[in-house]
Parts: sequence; structure tokens; C-alpha cells
Amino acid sequence: MKIAIVGASGYSGEELLKRLAEHPLVELGCLTSRQHAGKKASDVFGWIGDHSPLANVEFTEPDLALLPSLGIAFAFLALPHGVAAEFASPLLERGIKVIDLSADFRIKDPGVYRYFYKHEHPVPALLKKSVYGLPEAYRDQISCAALVACPGCYPTSILLPLLPLVRARMIRSSSIIANSLSGVSGAGRKADVDLLFVECNESARPYGLPGHRHLSEIEQEITNAAGQQVRIQFAPHLIPLNRGIVTTIHAEPVDELTVDSVGEVYHAAYDRDRFIRLLGSHRYPDVKDVAFSNRAEIAWRVDSRTGRVILMSVLDNLVKGAAGQAIQCFNIMNGWDEGIGLGT
Amino acid sequence: MKIAIVGASGYSGEELLKRLAEHPLVELGCLTSRQHAGKKASDVFGWIGDHSPLANVEFTEPDLALLPSLGIAFAFLALPHGVAAEFASPLLERGIKVIDLSADFRIKDPGVYRYFYKHEHPVPALLKKSVYGLPEAYRDQISCAALVACPGCYPTSILLPLLPLVRARMIRSSSIIANSLSGVSGAGRKADVDLLFVECNESARPYGLPGHRHLSEIEQEITNAAGQQVRIQFAPHLIPLNRGIVTTIHAEPVDELTVDSVGEVYHAAYDRDRFIRLLGSHRYPDVKDVAFSNRAEIAWRVDSRTGRVILMSVLDNLVKGAAGQAIQCFNIMNGWDEGIGLGT
Amino acid sequence: MKIAIVGASGYSGEELLKRLAEHPLVELGCLTSRQHAGKKASDVFGWIGDHSPLANVEFTEPDLALLPSLGIAFAFLALPHGVAAEFASPLLERGIKVIDLSADFRIKDPGVYRYFYKHEHPVPALLKKSVYGLPEAYRDQISCAALVACPGCYPTSILLPLLPLVRARMIRSSSIIANSLSGVSGAGRKADVDLLFVECNESARPYGLPGHRHLSEIEQEITNAAGQQVRIQFAPHLIPLNRGIVTTIHAEPVDELTVDSVGEVYHAAYDRDRFIRLLGSHRYPDVKDVAFSNRAEIAWRVDSRTGRVILMSVLDNLVKGAAGQAIQCFNIMNGWDEGIGLGT
Amino acid sequence: MKIAIVGASGYSGEELLKRLAEHPLVELGCLTSRQHAGKKASDVFGWIGDHSPLANVEFTEPDLALLPSLGIAFAFLALPHGVAAEFASPLLERGIKVIDLSADFRIKDPGVYRYFYKHEHPVPALLKKSVYGLPEAYRDQISCAALVACPGCYPTSILLPLLPLVRARMIRSSSIIANSLSGVSGAGRKADVDLLFVECNESARPYGLPGHRHLSEIEQEITNAAGQQVRIQFAPHLIPLNRGIVTTIHAEPVDELTVDSVGEVYHAAYDRDRFIRLLGSHRYPDVKDVAFSNRAEIAWRVDSRTGRVILMSVLDNLVKGAAGQAIQCFNIMNGWDEGIGLGT
Repeated sequence: MKIAIVGASGYSGEELLKRLAEHPLVELGCLTSRQHAGKKASDVFGWIGDHSPLANVEFTEPDLALLPSLGIAFAFLALPHGVAAEFASPLLERGIKVIDLSADFRIKDPGVYRYFYKHEHPVPALLKKSVYGLPEAYRDQISCAALVACPGCYPTSILLPLLPLVRARMIRSSSIIANSLSGVSGAGRKADVDLLFVECNESARPYGLPGHRHLSEIEQEITNAAGQQVRIQFAPHLIPLNRGIVTTIHAEPVDELTVDSVGEVYHAAYDRDRFIRLLGSHRYPDVKDVAFSNRAEIAWRVDSRTGRVILMSVLDNLVKGAAGQAIQCFNIMNGWDEGIGLGT
Repeated sequence: MKIAIVGASGYSGEELLKRLAEHPLVELGCLTSRQHAGKKASDVFGWIGDHSPLANVEFTEPDLALLPSLGIAFAFLALPHGVAAEFASPLLERGIKVIDLSADFRIKDPGVYRYFYKHEHPVPALLKKSVYGLPEAYRDQISCAALVACPGCYPTSILLPLLPLVRARMIRSSSIIANSLSGVSGAGRKADVDLLFVECNESARPYGLPGHRHLSEIEQEITNAAGQQVRIQFAPHLIPLNRGIVTTIHAEPVDELTVDSVGEVYHAAYDRDRFIRLLGSHRYPDVKDVAFSNRAEIAWRVDSRTGRVILMSVLDNLVKGAAGQAIQCFNIMNGWDEGIGLGT
Repeated sequence: MKIAIVGASGYSGEELLKRLAEHPLVELGCLTSRQHAGKKASDVFGWIGDHSPLANVEFTEPDLALLPSLGIAFAFLALPHGVAAEFASPLLERGIKVIDLSADFRIKDPGVYRYFYKHEHPVPALLKKSVYGLPEAYRDQISCAALVACPGCYPTSILLPLLPLVRARMIRSSSIIANSLSGVSGAGRKADVDLLFVECNESARPYGLPGHRHLSEIEQEITNAAGQQVRIQFAPHLIPLNRGIVTTIHAEPVDELTVDSVGEVYHAAYDRDRFIRLLGSHRYPDVKDVAFSNRAEIAWRVDSRTGRVILMSVLDNLVKGAAGQAIQCFNIMNGWDEGIGLGT
Repeated sequence: MKIAIVGASGYSGEELLKRLAEHPLVELGCLTSRQHAGKKASDVFGWIGDHSPLANVEFTEPDLALLPSLGIAFAFLALPHGVAAEFASPLLERGIKVIDLSADFRIKDPGVYRYFYKHEHPVPALLKKSVYGLPEAYRDQISCAALVACPGCYPTSILLPLLPLVRARMIRSSSIIANSLSGVSGAGRKADVDLLFVECNESARPYGLPGHRHLSEIEQEITNAAGQQVRIQFAPHLIPLNRGIVTTIHAEPVDELTVDSVGEVYHAAYDRDRFIRLLGSHRYPDVKDVAFSNRAEIAWRVDSRTGRVILMSVLDNLVKGAAGQAIQCFNIMNGWDEGIGLGT
């Protein structure tokens, strides 16, 4: 299966490249980067050894006129928000399936997109066709989609623990409060003083309060699951990690809950999902356990003193939160085992 | 003023030593450590230079028979929970004032102590005499106390943003949800595999859910301020920092709130407190701004979409969360400027 | 091929377990750990997911009476120095091949062993039979060995850049000065206060000067290559990384050298070695490029002002410096492609 | 004493500001930054609290026409290399003394400057007037200088351990090999992708080999001390620390040496220097012991196997390696105790 990675100079694109290079059913037909066009990938990414299948791959300019002529069946877009939309339309018209890692096709309602992203959506017609690329929620739709919009890293870490409980009407959706901690790669590979080592090391800080853009897709999906309009509280923080997200969610139950009843709902929802690990009500998740893995891990507690349920999740923002999830969707779109190329 | 530091081998004791050595009105009469007795402090702590006033200080065994004979007026106890209580009573009987950094004298109700600490309090009679050493709340009582129980690091970071709003009946106390992130020094200098560099670096994890011991003092103080029994939700996390705590609190307002009305309450409460900095409703706190400082910084938002108020605070767990706060109390107990020896 | 991992609670043993679990030709017959006997591996190591082949593996006591009855053909020993020797002899007697990651069988001369390790070697007769497990130097001997002593992490990082130039008589061996920087996992998973996060983060320090134990094997191998007795200068440092070693070596040339003549020797020596990457005389090695990889990377310079040659190398101390190299040897001992299970 | 800090947006300028604000004999007359002109310092630097003397200080444009009219007696230049030279001349002409933290006035020989900095020196006449601001070597000259060129951070860490032994003719200067490890703040506050958190964390790398610019001043000073032209070997490395430099030097003795004879020379040289701490031949230096301090610490060994002497030093690159050393010079230029404002 011949594929293209469009925009591979950022952290998500780099992770895509690393993992697709090891995917046994993939041939890399094209690797683009405005910044690195003409360079060998191995001169940009030091982890590409001489015996890697990528040893002689070169970056090219992202050329919409050229891309369709390369015999590519799939294009992974790892472009900045706003840029991806320009590429998707012409690719789809030529019959190339698109897996987009940006936020451009995640929001179904152009009004919500405008509210959170502060501009009109460039191709609103495509919003209806795109499928939200969270396999644990939309596996069937993904399998027959031509355009998949991979979820953000925060949304993945929040939706995976919430969706089964919201669907089961076990928690009051208006009571949901999600706190998340993200490693610095989540902010992208940008030459920004605030992201320098000295500014982030021995630093930890909340940001993006109260209306972080990822709220739009979180609320869209929780609203769908709840069957009613929901507003979520979401507080992101930057902490000195390379990779990883920890999310801790507090919510009030509709009726009295036990850890066992929560566990039953989770097991019913996720026992066939190989990339979800249920840690139960005694263990704690730790980002180091999922670093470089496509696994999300979920633990839970019921606070007998307050009655609230506490949900915890961890994942690697560049894998299950980006490139790994994209490849999982790609496998599903091809009717393959969804774990190919993604380890255990 | 001649003082003793009892139990100075941990991180809080070390920080006390570092700061009291620079305090212009203090003479160090005694420095104890079971582990290091007989050693020079400069052989244990590499930061003590040859020209430091501590260059020739030695650790001694903590000897309750000897301590009172050294002409000491104050004893700082930086001992493990449970051990401090044994020392306080005999010292107080000899007229030595005690500033305790452990949890032993923070809880007024022996039943609450038993519930959270899993054993009977050894000297419950002293609980009534102790004053909770949060100067911004109890300055007057501290000024005439013989026994001050310094608050924990998490409680300081949670109470400082909450108390003014709870006292002003602006937030529903039952709705309070506090998420905190702590640097690893908060776990103490313990030879524990879970605290090794390799286990904590590139790691982040929730722990102590839902009933962390610090809840006992947090709820005691919020209950006092609210005038009614309150249960708090509290979620601590360990992140790869040497020092620092970030707390983000969500709560529902009693009546509609604005960032300005919150700001007015804060300014009324804290404008005379030199170690509180109000960042307002636009800036974000960052632990690196308060590292090595006795300052706590507070920022706030009102989420117009959910109606909730969001409070953020940062402090250095070893300074405003431990040793610095202890010295602030000490200055107050002596009727001095409370900032002596604590920088700006 | 049924194998045992004996002593899998340390960092090297954990890395062996992780990689052998993915090795397509290996069946894990036995996993021992005194500390964890009776526990499931997935309860000790958080990275083992429910769908991992290790999901149901348990640790057992290391039992020399039992091990030979399990049908095991190979035993990987990841035991502390001194303990491995006790296990090797009985295993070898039963026809089980041994790949030892400790220092116990690296030194050929019992007198050198005694000098550096401060005690008599327990089974000196085995020293003659063991092969030093550096495939790039001893591939043929490894292929027919029954006992392989895997090199230390520092020695691997020092020998790989030095051996070709020493063999070619291009550098004066008495002039060799090696400086190395190691991540903290190199010190092992020990509950030692000096290895706590707070003690290692924002810390960097030389140690083990001037007679670090690894000198014994470095000098043994350089002496062999030089054909004369050599003394090396070696300065190790601990830096705040989880994994990785950087080595920078200075040496005086025998005759005038160019970067090209150095490059020719390296290419002749290593062009068929898939785990050596030659970076040449312009690029710099970075431990992040080889983290989690079995690759060692080498760069070089000639200082026209001083005439000295400068050699730089990086590797992952837990992979090419320990578990990866052990598996590379294991593959060679079986006559397989030496890269199986080791990535690119 | 009214002073100006010219160019205070980088790490060295920020450190100067923090420390001069606490200096009891200093009035800050002017604080410039092109980038931040018009902003309050407290809006740029989060560590400036409301009760700080800097609470209301503003950045201004660096205006050479205006500076002399402000009644300033001293100007600290924390400008990029090349820019400082433009400011020094007009300031000196108006009788304002200059303490320059850049490399612009460190090199006496314009030819050496050209060789290492790749352009002609803009005001070579000033090179003769400047004094190299290493108080332990040039205290008397500094005391009567109008222009002091503060040494670089690497040179300070290399010269302090070397100068006494070179002056005493105890080591062969041609044999000197210095390896240094630097925290990332040494690279400056630059929006450079290579300095991002994700690029530096879990990374360690040599760079600038073999001809790092700092060699020019190191060799100049060693040559002066040796009384003959000397070439030094110097290998810098970047490691994931915020601040700190570790240097390990190997050299051959002229005649046989002992740790005691080395110690005697050091004690004779440094016993009156309050910012030098001699750790002797058993302890190891650690950057965490000198972080935020103006102290440099020195340890040494003699390797009985190779005959070489090993010197180790640590310092904080922003304090003894930059701002602290500048203030130490400033105190000396004023005839004050050189430790004022610099702690113990």
C-alpha cells in the first residue's frame, strides 16, 4: 500500500514516519516538508540509521499537482491547523484517502469551528464526510471512510475514560471536570522561547483556561454520547516531560456507583480493544508505562466521602494521541488487523 | 535568638538550615540528625562553603535530656510524622517554643487524626494549644502561640486561594475540586525505588486518591472558614520537578461571579500580605517563578460557558510549603517583620 | 529456542525481558527474581499490557536445582557482579549456554580481576572459556562460545571507536584519554539516596576517579589490540538522563592523520556491522538518536592545532551497552541474523 | 552607586538584574532591552514580586545618547558578542566604567580575535585597556580598571583549576585536555529549535569541536601563566541541566606529583579567595552544590597508574561564570568587600 506523509517535520509527522517505516504492508511513496525539501530524511532525523528502510528517503516539496501522480492510495496529513484543509479536497477528488492529524475536520458544526478557531472553515462541505478517528468509538465508520480526522491528544485522553460512562448514563455530564498534564512535545516543534529547555525544565503551569480549542471536539463527542448538549470543564497544564498525557477527571454519578459497576461498564466497552488497558480501582496509571506505546490506560475510584467518581488516564500524546492512532485508523480503513505496526 | 533544628537530614530540614543560617537575628544552638550525628554539616550538604557560617557546625543526636540545657528559645521540628509529637511536649514544658513542620499538631479533632493517620494521637491535649501556622489566616494567634503546626505544602497551595472566597460565601464549598501537581522533593529524602531518578524522570502520575492525608487539614480549615462541615475533592500528582506545587481548583459560585468581584475579595484579603502575589485573570502562574521564594502566587478565571470559577496557585513546596512558612511564623512569634531572612 | 532470564528486576534484566518478548524465535521458559518471585511480571512492570505475550508470565525464585529441568537452552544472567559466577558453572555443566551481563567473566587474568574487584574470582577456570561479547570484535568466537561475557556499557562506548585505530597502529595507546557521560540507569535500580530524582536532576558529577572497575576490561581489550600492555585514562560522569552514554576520546596519532584516513579505517572495520553508524567528521553524535536502539554511533575530528584525534561515540547503555548486545550475541551463537529482535 | 544594565533580556542579564536588585550599595539607574523596551520588568520576569525593589522598573531602549545623562557610574553590558563593543567606547569616553559580559574585550591580540571570531575587532585600541575579569587572577588590575571583560563560563571553569599548577610549572601545558559539560542556559535565550525542551531533555552531545571560540581566551591566559605559547585541547558538551558547568581536566606532570603537593599549591593560591572551595582528593564536585552560588569548587586526583593529574571543577555558568563574577569585579572596582550581594 503506497502512502504519502505530508508535512513530516513536526513531532507527529516524525512519529508517523518512524512507525510507518516499520509497517510491513506500507510503501512510503512520498515524504514532504516545506522546510526540509531536498534533504535526506536521515540528515534531519538522527534516529534513521544506515540500515533503516528510510536511509535514502528524501523530503520533497508538498506539491498538490504532483501528489496524485505518484500512485498513492493514502495521504497522512501532519500539517498545521488550517493548512490541512487545503490539501484534503484535491486529494480526495483524485480518490486518495486522507488521514488528517490536524484539527481541521474534527468538528461537525462550522459554527462551533468558528467559535473555537476564530475563522470560517475553508471547506465546510467536507465536515460531513469526515469520520472522527477514535477507533474505540467509531471503528465501523472509520472502516469505510475516505477522510478520517484523528482526535487531538487531550480529547483522546478525556473521551476514552468518559464515553462508556456517559453512554451508560452513569455520570452527570454537566459535572465533568477534566484536568490534564501534557509533555512539551504536545506544543509542537516550534522555535518559541516559551518552549526552550530552560523555560520548561523545573517549570509547570496551567494554560489555555478556560476555553482551550480541544474543548470543541471533546464537547461534540460527549454531547453525542449523552444525547444532550454538554459543557465540559477542561484545564490543561504543561509539565517537563518529552511525551505523555495524564488526565484526571472528576464527575458526579447519576445514581450511587461502585468501583465494580464502573468496572463492568468499562470491561463491556473495552475488552475487545487491544489498545485500552483497564487498571481497575487499585493501581495508578503512569505516563512512563505507555511512553512509545499506542496504549491508553484507565483507572478509576469512587470517593465514598464525596460520592464522586474519579477517572484517570494516560497515553503517549505522539502515539495514541496522534501518529499511532492515525495508523490504527489506517489499518482499519484497509480491513487489516488494527494493531499492525503498533507493537503490543 | 538561639534556636535548634531537630531532624535536619530531610529536604525540609535542609531548607530550614540553609535559610536560618542567613537569618540575621538567629543563632543556631543545635542541629540534630540521628543519621548524621557526629558529622559536619558541610560534609553532608555540599552547598555549605568554607566561608559559610555553617562551615563548622556539627550534627548531634536528638537528645531530649540535653536540648533544654542549651539555652534554646525555639525548636524547629523537621521530623517524620509521629516522631515530632514525642519531642514537642518535653520542649514546651521547659518553656521552649516549638515550630513543628510535621502533621502531628495540625488536626484539632483527634478523631479526624485517627481516621486519616490510622493511629491514636499520642498527646491529644496539645492539639488544643497548637496554632495552625498559616500566617495569612492566623497571624494574630501565631504571634502569641507556643506551639505552631506548619501547614502541609498541598494545604497551603489550596487554602490560600480558597479561604477568602469561602469566607465571603462566594463559592459553594461542596463543589470544590482541587488538582495539584507536586515536585518530587515533596515525597521526602527517602531511599525508595519509586523515587529514583529513572522512575520519576519522564513519568507523571496521580496518587493518594481519593483520601490523601492532607485532606484532613484542608477540610478542617475550609470548614472553619465556611462555618459548616465541608468535604473537599483533592487529587495529587507527582511530576518530574525538584520543587514546586501547582494547584488548579474548580468551584461553583453561590451567585454569579466576575473576575473583578473575585479580584476585589482577593485584594481585600491579601494586599498586606507580602508573600502573596495576585496575578489576576490574564496571567498564568508558573512554579519556576516562585522556586526558592516564599511567595505563593494566585490567578483566577471565571468560565462564562460553565459558570465555574477556576483558581490557580503555585508555591515552592520546600519554602512557602515548609521551611519558609515556618520561618515566617517564627518571625511573627518574635514580633519581628515577618519577612526577615526570606527575601522578596 | 527456550531461554531463561535470571535476575530480571534490574534495568538490564527488564530491558532483556522487553526485547526477548518480541524476539520471534524465542520462548521464555523462566523468569527469575528473588525480590519479585511469585508476582506477575505485569504487576511489576507497567509497560506489559494485557495483550502482551508477557501478560501472564510470573517471576520465580532463581533455583539452580530447577533451572536445568525446564528444557532451557540458554540462560541470560542479569545478576549483580559476583552472583552471576555462582550460576554459570552449574548451568554450563548441564549444557545450558550462558550469556552473562555482569562483569564476572569479562576479565581473563584473575590477578587483574582481584585488583579491580577486590576479591578472588570464584571460578577462575571459567575465565578461559568465556568469550568477550563484543560482536564487532569477536563475532567468530561468540558464534561457537558456550559462555559469553557481555561488555560493560562504558567499555562498549570506548572500545568501538578505539579498536580499529589501535589495531591499525594509528594512535599512541598510552595517550588515550576517555571521558564518558552516563545516564542514571547505568547505576542500576538501587534504593540509594544518591540516585533519587532530586539528587540527580539539576546535578552532574564526575565519579569513580581514577580507577573505575570498567578500566580492567577496557585495558584488557586495548592491550590485545595494541599488542602491548596499555594503560588508559578514563573519567566517568553521571548526568541527568534516563539512558545513554556519550564518550569523547582524545589521543595522539603515531603519524600525521587526516579525517579521511581515520574514516577509511573505520569504514573498513565497520561497513558490514549493522549496529555501527559512522557519522564522519562533520556531524555530532547525540544520545537521543540512539535511545532505545542497539546502534552505536561514532564521529571523529582531527585537531589541526594540536594534532590530536578526537573520537566521539554514543549508545544506549541498556541496549547496545547491555541487553541489546546480549541478544546480538545470542543471535550469533544460534547462527541467526544478528539483528533479529533488535530493530534497525 | 548608580548603574545601568544594558541588554537584560538574556539569561546573564536576567541574573545580573536579580542580583544587583539585592545589592545594598547599588541603585538601578537604567535597564535596557530592545526586545522589551516599554514593558515592566515584572511583566517579563515572573520572579519579580510586588514587594521587590524591581516591582516598578521598566525596560527602555538602549540609547547611547541618553545613557550618559542618567548619572550612571557603571554600565554592565549583557549584549551579544559584537554589539557590546559599540557601546563600550562612548560610555568610557563619558567616564562611565564598563563591565562587559560578552567576549568582545577578552582577547588582547586582534589577530587571535579575528581567527576565532571570524571578523576584525571593531575597536582594537580598547583591547589594551581592558582587564580580564577573573578576580582570582587579576584582582589588583581589576581594582583600577575602567573596562573589565568578564571571562566566559567555560574559561572560568578551566582556568581556576589550571592557573596555579601552570604557574608553579607542575604540569606540562601542552598535555592539557579539558572536557566540559554545560547546562542549556549557557547557549543563551534563543528561539532555536535545537534548544527546545524536547530536543535537549534525554539528550547529551558534544559540540564545537575542535575549535570552540572560548579556546582563544583560555589559551591566552594559560600562555601568560606558562610564560610560553600553549595550545589547549577543549571538548564542550551540552547536557540537560538548566545551569551549571562541570569540567574534568587531564594533564601530565612535569615531575612526579602527589595529591598533597597539588593541594599545597591550591591552598597557597586560593585560601584567601572566598569564592573558591577546595574539595581535596577524596570528594567529588557536583554542580548542584554550586547552583545559584558564586562559588567554584575544585577537586583533584593523581592517577598512580598513568601518572596523570586529574582536575575537576564545577560552577554555575550564570553566576561565577557570568553575572556573579561581574558583580565580584564591580565590588573590587569600588574598593568594597568583593562578596557584597553574592551570598556565601
